[in-house]
Amino acid sequence: MTDLPTITTFAWVPEFARGFVRDIRPRWACEEVGQAYRVNLIRDAKTPDHRRFQPFGQVPAYRDDAVEIFESGAMVLRIAERAGGPLLPADPALRFKAVQWLVAALNTIEPVVMGLVVNDVFERDTPWSAERHPTALSYLELRLAELQADLGNKPWLDGDVFTVGDLMMVSVLGGLRGMDVLGRFPALAAYVARGEDRPAHRKAMADHLAVFAAPAAA
Amino acid sequence: MTDLPTITTFAWVPEFARGFVRDIRPRWACEEVGQAYRVNLIRDAKTPDHRRFQPFGQVPAYRDDAVEIFESGAMVLRIAERAGGPLLPADPALRFKAVQWLVAALNTIEPVVMGLVVNDVFERDTPWSAERHPTALSYLELRLAELQADLGNKPWLDGDVFTVGDLMMVSVLGGLRGMDVLGRFPALAAYVARGEDRPAHRKAMADHLAVFAAPAAA
Repeated sequence: MTDLPTITTFAWVPEFARGFVRDIRPRWACEEVGQAYRVNLIRDAKTPDHRRFQPFGQVPAYRDDAVEIFESGAMVLRIAERAGGPLLPADPALRFKAVQWLVAALNTIEPVVMGLVVNDVFERDTPWSAERHPTALSYLELRLAELQADLGNKPWLDGDVFTVGDLMMVSVLGGLRGMDVLGRFPALAAYVARGEDRPAHRKAMADHLAVFAAPAAA
Repeated sequence: MTDLPTITTFAWVPEFARGFVRDIRPRWACEEVGQAYRVNLIRDAKTPDHRRFQPFGQVPAYRDDAVEIFESGAMVLRIAERAGGPLLPADPALRFKAVQWLVAALNTIEPVVMGLVVNDVFERDTPWSAERHPTALSYLELRLAELQADLGNKPWLDGDVFTVGDLMMVSVLGGLRGMDVLGRFPALAAYVARGEDRPAHRKAMADHLAVFAAPAAA
C-alpha cells in the first residue's frame, strides 16, 4: 500500500489504440507537476468491480489520498490544483482561462475530432462512411481554422504560460495523429508538436507505451 | 455600467433552438446561487468583435469583475466557485466528484446526444441520415443505460446534494427534449424532470425564453 496517486488503465490495448488511451492525460499532468504516481493495470474495464468506480466501463480512473474520480478532464484539474503552480494558476482570471480552454478541448474540439475518427475508422465498413467523410471533415476543419486564428503567433493558448488548457488541447488534437488533416493547419500542427515535445509529455507517452512493450502477463 | 456579471447571448434564435441555447446554463447557475446578472444580447456571434471574446463565434460568453470566459462548462464552475456553497462543495472529495460529473456531461454524454441530434436534424436531408440513425442511437442508448444504472435510486448523481455536475447533466440530457429516446430510460427522465423543476431552472428557462417573446428590436 502506498499514498501515491493511482491511475488505473489498461494492461493491453490493440496496436491502433496505443498512444491514444487517455491515461496519457493524467500521466502527463503528474509529470508536469513532478508528482510521482503508481499505475494499476486492468485487463477489462467492463467488470462490475471497475464499473462501481467508472460507470461507463472506461479507463482511466484516478485516486489519491482524498479524491476518487473518473474523466481525464477532472483528473488533470485535480492533479494541477493539488500541486499548485502555473499549470493551473491561482489568480482567478488566469485560472478560469485555463479551465475555459480545457473545457473547449473537451466539448468544442474533441467531439469534432472524434466525429471524424468514428466516421473514418469505427464506421469504415458502413455504406455511408465514404460519402459522409467530407461532412465530418468540414465540422472539424471549421473549428481547427478558428482555433488556429485565435492561437496566432502565441506559443500557448493564453500566451507564454503552458496550462491545463494546453495540455488538454494538445492531447485532443493528438487524436488526429496519423491522419492528414492537421498538416493543413501548420500553426496548429506546430503547437501540437511543441506540446508533445515537452519533457513531461515525452516521459508520460514513453511510460504509456512501455506497458504494451512488456511481455504480456498471463 | 454595473459590476454585475454579464452573460452574452443571442437576441434572437429560430424557434427550434429556443429552450436549447447554452446561455441557460450560466443563467441557471446564477439562479441557484442567488447571483443577479445582466444579459448582453447580440444578433450575430460571427463578428470580429465577438470573436475576440469567443473565437468559435458562439454564445454564451461571460464576464464578471475578475474573469472573462467562454464555454458554458467553465462559466458554471466560475459562478459556483465565486458564490461558494453546495453547488460546488469546498471539500475536495465532493468537489471533484461534482467536477467529474460536469466533465462527464460535457465529454461522455453530450457528444452522443449531439451525435444523434446532428444525424437526425442537421443531416436529415442527407442520403445517409435514415440509414445511420440506428448507429447514432446505439451510441447514445449505451451511455444512457450506464448512466441510469449508476444513478439508481439516488435523487442526484452524487446522492442527496445537487451540484454543478447535476446542473450540467440535466442540461445536456435536456437536449433530447422532443425526441422519444429519454422516455425509454424512466429513471433518467425523472431525474431530468426533477432538475428542470427546480425553481432556479424554471426562472432561468423563463428568462431565456422571454427574450424571444419580446417584440424584436430593429
